[in-house]
Amino acid sequence: MEDIEYILLKYAKIIDHYILERLTGTPEELYNAALHLIRAGGKRLRPTLTLLVARLLGGVEAESRATPLAAAVEISHNFTLIHDDIMDRDDYRRGVPTVHRLWGESWAILAGDLLHAYAYKFVVNSVEYGLGKSESHEAMKILTTAGIKVSRGQAYDLLFEKKWDIRVIDYLDMVHHKTGAMLEASAKLGAVAARASSDIVELMGQYGGLLGVAFQIRDDYLGVFGDPGKTGKPIYSDLRRGKKTLLVLYTLSKASQEDREFIIKTLSPDTAKSEEDIARIAQLIKEYKADIEAMNLARVYVERAKEIVSELRGVVDENSRNILLRLADYVVSREK
Amino acid sequence: MEDIEYILLKYAKIIDHYILERLTGTPEELYNAALHLIRAGGKRLRPTLTLLVARLLGGVEAESRATPLAAAVEISHNFTLIHDDIMDRDDYRRGVPTVHRLWGESWAILAGDLLHAYAYKFVVNSVEYGLGKSESHEAMKILTTAGIKVSRGQAYDLLFEKKWDIRVIDYLDMVHHKTGAMLEASAKLGAVAARASSDIVELMGQYGGLLGVAFQIRDDYLGVFGDPGKTGKPIYSDLRRGKKTLLVLYTLSKASQEDREFIIKTLSPDTAKSEEDIARIAQLIKEYKADIEAMNLARVYVERAKEIVSELRGVVDENSRNILLRLADYVVSREK
Repeated sequence: MEDIEYILLKYAKIIDHYILERLTGTPEELYNAALHLIRAGGKRLRPTLTLLVARLLGGVEAESRATPLAAAVEISHNFTLIHDDIMDRDDYRRGVPTVHRLWGESWAILAGDLLHAYAYKFVVNSVEYGLGKSESHEAMKILTTAGIKVSRGQAYDLLFEKKWDIRVIDYLDMVHHKTGAMLEASAKLGAVAARASSDIVELMGQYGGLLGVAFQIRDDYLGVFGDPGKTGKPIYSDLRRGKKTLLVLYTLSKASQEDREFIIKTLSPDTAKSEEDIARIAQLIKEYKADIEAMNLARVYVERAKEIVSELRGVVDENSRNILLRLADYVVSREK
Repeated sequence: MEDIEYILLKYAKIIDHYILERLTGTPEELYNAALHLIRAGGKRLRPTLTLLVARLLGGVEAESRATPLAAAVEISHNFTLIHDDIMDRDDYRRGVPTVHRLWGESWAILAGDLLHAYAYKFVVNSVEYGLGKSESHEAMKILTTAGIKVSRGQAYDLLFEKKWDIRVIDYLDMVHHKTGAMLEASAKLGAVAARASSDIVELMGQYGGLLGVAFQIRDDYLGVFGDPGKTGKPIYSDLRRGKKTLLVLYTLSKASQEDREFIIKTLSPDTAKSEEDIARIAQLIKEYKADIEAMNLARVYVERAKEIVSELRGVVDENSRNILLRLADYVVSREK
């Protein structure tokens, strides 16, 4: 049985080849900035999802047709990473300095905009890979809808930094937009490339969306308890930004009055954050078992996602079903 | 004969109605930031071009079909304005403070990204206005191609701020990308909505592209010699940023050694720019008649654009031809 990380690497090669062959132009500085994070690596989870779903429902031919759509979701994702890193003042990602750290903010804004436009261009290109104009139109509808949701999710994330009346349900809604929407789109696009019925497209979208929420919860977890050598990101940066992650929300809901006040004071935008105080919050998350509770919720999402794939009819490639089930487990067990 | 500014106002109403009805959502802060410049006004030159070309080639029905495409070019343009204002550190536009001045940089980046995604969504919507999937696909191809060119043009503009070996031909190439590409796309989209042949689509694209270069030269001129009360933008901001406008390039090519050295020193990125020195450069532009020479070149572009429209066959609405000819003259005579 192939290891999931090996499978991701295999798909990464297909995607990277497609992207690097087409994302060329002048000025060189702009294209280098735009390709920086892509060249730095990354899991390629989103495009892999597109290709796997296409194969699941339509075999190797559908997988091949899905290639431009898979490339589109990957570069759309990279565009949001570049812009989010500016907003969140993050210095490292995928083990390398972020785009705005290396090229400055103006170039990072532009590099993101360039990738954003190329994402849609790749969808246009999909007709050269055998998609009909009608399928390409459907793909465009899916990607624009996701793009709008991702912007809205990031806006909520920014708003939440300054608010304290955030409930778990608000967090989940924010995460469904910020991260779930693009994974939902990734899965849907694979189904469109396989010429699946609209019911199946919707079902696969649900699978992707559930995976996305679980993925983000794991991301929050790794941001506090992960190994920066593996994640490629500095530790505690969410806490330093006062992000209302699920870990923080669960801790607040269970903490003593004293601990609660300490957390609120420390995470407030105006408070200078000492490394000691931030580490103390990480400790409180553990003490109140918020880490366990958060990962439990993530697993609930994963189980729901797996049910969808398990019960799916019209599957033409059983091996892909198997991989998609294991991919769901990987999302919440990954260390990077 | 209707006044061009009156015609622009008439079209602005159609476009604004379409945009304001659809650009709604949460969080409110995000949508307010995204709509800020649209609400502040603007000439709506690009969408007007789309609607006029559609009418020229296909009558009122084509004009109606072109509405979502016209809205798409307008909000795509607004997205680039919001992001460019961050990069250029501009504080005012259309007579109001810029988005990043009012909401901060993070929100300005996000508001631009939201508009960018909506621009493509509006193209997707065009099938609800009677466009075929194939025409919608063609429209998407045109808009993505323009989007990529605009990013590249802005990148060249940033690069030129630090370089001195810029030739007039480099400036024209930069401007063709930065401004020409979106006007080219605006005209092409109108032709696509009118179901024109690909030859005619290309011809209309040339008309729009030529107009775009002329428009930018006039913009550079108004940035130095315009009335901020009319343009809505502060005076001399290009000079303060060390932009290599056509005015500066022509002045440098004709200036004495002494004046040349003064201009280069003053406009260099590292030099603190006094209001006196900047005003002196404006004076030198006049003294060396670079303003006249620049507007003469703009008029050459306008004349070429008018020739295309004059000689065009297959026109179904002669009144629109007349307006497009006068619109070309307006581009280089406008005061705002």
